[in-house]
Amino acid sequence: MLTLNADLGEGIGRHNFGNDAALMQLIDVANVACGFHAGDPAEMERTVRLAQEHAVAVGAHPGLPDLAGFGRRAMNLDPADVRRLITYQTGALKGFLDAADMPLHHIKPHGALYGMLARDAKLMEAAAGVCKIFKVPFFGLAGTAHEQVCEAEGVAFVPELYVDLDYDNEGNLLIRPQPEEKTPEQVAQRLNQALADCTITAEDGTAVPVRFSSVCVHSDGGHSVQIAQRCREELDAYRECE
Amino acid sequence: MLTLNADLGEGIGRHNFGNDAALMQLIDVANVACGFHAGDPAEMERTVRLAQEHAVAVGAHPGLPDLAGFGRRAMNLDPADVRRLITYQTGALKGFLDAADMPLHHIKPHGALYGMLARDAKLMEAAAGVCKIFKVPFFGLAGTAHEQVCEAEGVAFVPELYVDLDYDNEGNLLIRPQPEEKTPEQVAQRLNQALADCTITAEDGTAVPVRFSSVCVHSDGGHSVQIAQRCREELDAYRECE
Amino acid sequence: MLTLNADLGEGIGRHNFGNDAALMQLIDVANVACGFHAGDPAEMERTVRLAQEHAVAVGAHPGLPDLAGFGRRAMNLDPADVRRLITYQTGALKGFLDAADMPLHHIKPHGALYGMLARDAKLMEAAAGVCKIFKVPFFGLAGTAHEQVCEAEGVAFVPELYVDLDYDNEGNLLIRPQPEEKTPEQVAQRLNQALADCTITAEDGTAVPVRFSSVCVHSDGGHSVQIAQRCREELDAYRECE
Amino acid sequence: MLTLNADLGEGIGRHNFGNDAALMQLIDVANVACGFHAGDPAEMERTVRLAQEHAVAVGAHPGLPDLAGFGRRAMNLDPADVRRLITYQTGALKGFLDAADMPLHHIKPHGALYGMLARDAKLMEAAAGVCKIFKVPFFGLAGTAHEQVCEAEGVAFVPELYVDLDYDNEGNLLIRPQPEEKTPEQVAQRLNQALADCTITAEDGTAVPVRFSSVCVHSDGGHSVQIAQRCREELDAYRECE
Repeated sequence: MLTLNADLGEGIGRHNFGNDAALMQLIDVANVACGFHAGDPAEMERTVRLAQEHAVAVGAHPGLPDLAGFGRRAMNLDPADVRRLITYQTGALKGFLDAADMPLHHIKPHGALYGMLARDAKLMEAAAGVCKIFKVPFFGLAGTAHEQVCEAEGVAFVPELYVDLDYDNEGNLLIRPQPEEKTPEQVAQRLNQALADCTITAEDGTAVPVRFSSVCVHSDGGHSVQIAQRCREELDAYRECE
Repeated sequence: MLTLNADLGEGIGRHNFGNDAALMQLIDVANVACGFHAGDPAEMERTVRLAQEHAVAVGAHPGLPDLAGFGRRAMNLDPADVRRLITYQTGALKGFLDAADMPLHHIKPHGALYGMLARDAKLMEAAAGVCKIFKVPFFGLAGTAHEQVCEAEGVAFVPELYVDLDYDNEGNLLIRPQPEEKTPEQVAQRLNQALADCTITAEDGTAVPVRFSSVCVHSDGGHSVQIAQRCREELDAYRECE
Repeated sequence: MLTLNADLGEGIGRHNFGNDAALMQLIDVANVACGFHAGDPAEMERTVRLAQEHAVAVGAHPGLPDLAGFGRRAMNLDPADVRRLITYQTGALKGFLDAADMPLHHIKPHGALYGMLARDAKLMEAAAGVCKIFKVPFFGLAGTAHEQVCEAEGVAFVPELYVDLDYDNEGNLLIRPQPEEKTPEQVAQRLNQALADCTITAEDGTAVPVRFSSVCVHSDGGHSVQIAQRCREELDAYRECE
Repeated sequence: MLTLNADLGEGIGRHNFGNDAALMQLIDVANVACGFHAGDPAEMERTVRLAQEHAVAVGAHPGLPDLAGFGRRAMNLDPADVRRLITYQTGALKGFLDAADMPLHHIKPHGALYGMLARDAKLMEAAAGVCKIFKVPFFGLAGTAHEQVCEAEGVAFVPELYVDLDYDNEGNLLIRPQPEEKTPEQVAQRLNQALADCTITAEDGTAVPVRFSSVCVHSDGGHSVQIAQRCREELDAYRECE
């Protein structure tokens, strides 16, 4: 079944993007920030409880240790660094899930870390190892090291579609510090094309094949809620006609 | 002359309160966060440039090292800690002012640090020492250690009025992690009373005497811009009839 | 049975106190720093593995978010802050324990947080709640809120003796940013007195009653290893003659 | 005149490498860490005062925001990021220099940032711009973008020799998270060769030409003091025979 997931809990201190409460009503799965690129213990606790109220499954969304860069600036890490960063952050989130008596649903890295793991099998092996420890699937991009390593390591893999970010013509996601926001209409069009033709239009206009069982939307844009609303509607309509 | 000042540049990474551009058009003086309770190098540079465009004077707004608590949780510091925290943060801001060829206008500590200095003359002496190094005035509360120490140490002192925070019945400011927001009307009423009678109504209803030459508004509330707008109007009207 | 515990894993990046490998050979229980006052993911992983090699039990040693102050500067936190800080850090450590297939043994807060919980039952209730979530005992000071709240909340409590820190004449531990180090001889004498008479000599010379089932030594002093060595010898001799 | 410089003030909280007091007696110029990869306000103040006592000139040693990685993990920054990071940290250090009535001597980036600027002229232009604001020279590697951009931008440039780190066969410095330490004898031999033949032996055995007017030693190794001692002796002997 196709699910809708969103990156949530990305506030810090008095700051937040203001969209979490509305998004929780629209999504199936929340990827919750764990304190390194965003999130703090209060934000994490609040987000887990909010997910529980809406029966939304919660996965860990670990990022690079870079609040000022929102985890969107790649760092030169080795596999041991990756293993430790993901273990630490996933464990921290699991503490809040244990307190709410909720299971950890999956691990999905954030931002530049996500992109680094898509490109580098050695780093991705480290991440897959953490999935094994926590006994959870990995959310990532089909056709990249995400999928290849999960398959080789026996880690369950959930392929995602990004409707609010750009792809290059080889199907790689373009992780940018401040991506230009798409309109809800653009997003709906992209999702429809993906559902109908299993392709997405890359930044240069090429139709790139995509394979996915979950659709990701972000929470940090001005139209995040409307975008999620449109995706929810499209997915519900698609399910009905299936 | 009465001025209007605001705490600005309190974003971090992709987060900000969204009010700085509008507030810069209304205020005379900006207190710019320096990275410990809020602010990061990009935010500081952006805020200094925005101030320059609007001919707004810029002071340092150093806070406690506590992003998650927004500098509003008091810490048990000694005078040397205070001296070093303020020196570091003020120097950092001055780097961006030097780059913009702007002078440092003053030092005004943030949140819990502001309250700690109001109550503790030893800590305030450390802060006054930093004002001497940078040769700038201190913005603070009349009748507290802020004023007493500045006077004793020969540091210029600018007394402030807080129209959007509560006072206790001894004239101390109540620094809370998440203060309840006042309406623009309440703020205007408080400012009018202060201008007319030199009093403010404390939380328990007592009319407390206040003395000030600058009025402070915050940037982190939902009505911050409307509040500043009302204060600007009141101050302009008051000046005219003087 | 009397155990010897030590606060370990308090390095960060390229820094560490250099005593962990030697201390692991002497102690029964390690309290491992969790990243807020000290420790980073690499240090935590390393310390957990080192403990495993030496069959040392591992507890979480969560601290205040203050690397520069080493968690020894009290902060004005509310119970929810305490609950979240301890949950986050304990969860993070548990991630590394899960990876090593080791159980979490206990929770023992660090430095100023430890002292805050000893004095404030509301804060301690928050900590006890986290012990319940993780189903582990709390290490603390007999006769303080540590013990009283654990008893009231049904949380197992392990009373500690501090041989390398000073007590006041009411039996409270004096948590200082940079405590003066005791010599191994002083420590051995203090431990002997505690074992023989169940008292410790407070800073002002008073003999204060103490009750304990674990003895704590620190890892950040120049003589930490010799101190632990002397304590190990005294405890072994005491056990034999029991 | 040939000078000896060292990276100092790289402690944090209760941690430090323990070599600064001895090194200050041996060097001419100190590069002081500014809080992002190492250093905190207390450490910076202490290091500036120590330099003053020994009449050692002080430059800023800004690094990447990565305490756990000690600034030795490259990050994907753009020129604006670089400009802001260096401005912030240099300003912060200048605050402590102002307090000690000492001038800022130069800017020399740390670790991975140093290497990034050596390779990327766009990033280096950002750094050179900050040198212009602070009106100080840049310490860097001859033959790299460090020198080329300084020349193009009219920024004074001081070329350095690294005797305790490895070079590749094109004369680039190899910045590693945990470089293997050289012995004092190896370092002395490398310095002698550089002074005599203007070459250094790269990791692969190639003799690479070097050009320098300052020799850099690190403070974080077990033999840092002995290494600096040998360099001091060699430089003094060389000066005499000139």
